[in-house]
Amino acid sequence: MSLFITFEGIEGSGKTTQISRLATHLRSQGLEVVQTREPGGCRVADAIRGILLDSDNAGLAPTAELLLYAAARRQHVEEVIQPALAADQVVLCDRFTDATLAYQGYGRGLSLELIENLNTLAGAGLCPDLTLLFELPVEIGLNRALRRIENATGPAEDRFEQESLAFHERVRQGYLTLAERNPHRYRLLAAEAHPDQVFAQAVKIVDKILIKRQGL
Amino acid sequence: MSLFITFEGIEGSGKTTQISRLATHLRSQGLEVVQTREPGGCRVADAIRGILLDSDNAGLAPTAELLLYAAARRQHVEEVIQPALAADQVVLCDRFTDATLAYQGYGRGLSLELIENLNTLAGAGLCPDLTLLFELPVEIGLNRALRRIENATGPAEDRFEQESLAFHERVRQGYLTLAERNPHRYRLLAAEAHPDQVFAQAVKIVDKILIKRQGL
Repeated sequence: MSLFITFEGIEGSGKTTQISRLATHLRSQGLEVVQTREPGGCRVADAIRGILLDSDNAGLAPTAELLLYAAARRQHVEEVIQPALAADQVVLCDRFTDATLAYQGYGRGLSLELIENLNTLAGAGLCPDLTLLFELPVEIGLNRALRRIENATGPAEDRFEQESLAFHERVRQGYLTLAERNPHRYRLLAAEAHPDQVFAQAVKIVDKILIKRQGL
Repeated sequence: MSLFITFEGIEGSGKTTQISRLATHLRSQGLEVVQTREPGGCRVADAIRGILLDSDNAGLAPTAELLLYAAARRQHVEEVIQPALAADQVVLCDRFTDATLAYQGYGRGLSLELIENLNTLAGAGLCPDLTLLFELPVEIGLNRALRRIENATGPAEDRFEQESLAFHERVRQGYLTLAERNPHRYRLLAAEAHPDQVFAQAVKIVDKILIKRQGL
């Protein structure tokens, strides 16, 4: 049974940790799970990710950035996501087309129509079955991301973590708008909570969909 | 006086050598000249060029490739070409939007309409004042490129040089079609000739345009 789940949210929302836990949970139920992320997920897209996150590329033009995301996505979709779904696997993807709308559209102010057209091209028309939005105040998310850097448990501050609070607030509001506009596939998680509680919320939502899909 | 000249043609057509000679010729006339190339021409675009030409990326999806060219172009246009033209300089660019139509459109068979839309976005609407097409039979061009590799005077064979003869023939015919459709800015050079003769042809065309522009 193929299932395409995307995980969205601002920096420090705890997505990455939860995706790993959810992958373990789903595998324990006998499902084949592909855990991946954007930008990246394959050789070419990882090379593009390197350009996008490199803090030395501060002069990256917003439209060039948008096109780089699109290029990475198209390669990732063709090489990883489509083959996995065709093989009846569950794909858990850390960020997808909505992230481009949230960051480059609502965050940077690029045309939403242009982004939607590029999303359709880059995503080869693919739409998630379920999008989990990890919702929390920007200050809390950024503080978490900052602590991760200070403890050196994560990579050094990247181009996005260097953006202003106002930028991240626009991204958060953008995600909430997308959730409102796509209620059939969006589910919100209160990501301020303890990781165990966030995980419990995620499991409840995903298990419900699995039961529905399996016709149980 | 700003002037934007692009140089197009198949592999081994001798463009690169001629651009350097032409740059020297124009500088000797007191003009400020920016000599650049695509994909590349600035830090971000050079990094993208590395991904595009890397023969280990043989699995690069055609649409992802197209989007990478567009990303590199947009950065190059904003960072290099537009500022130079705004400062009344002459820009000599080795390949531009027409190369994408020739290689990805006529060569790989991707939608010409899609490429034209991406060219407009990536090129920020910029159109060359003059395009010099270095015209020669595919066999001769590829033999030249091959000899350059064997003599180790150039880089190792890249993703494009590994393409079939039929692919390069489609690219050549594509360029001829573009020249027919854009007679106002296209000029053909017989690139089979001795480099000195090719240079003489190029100088004649460019000097004529300069005289016209300067109102002499």
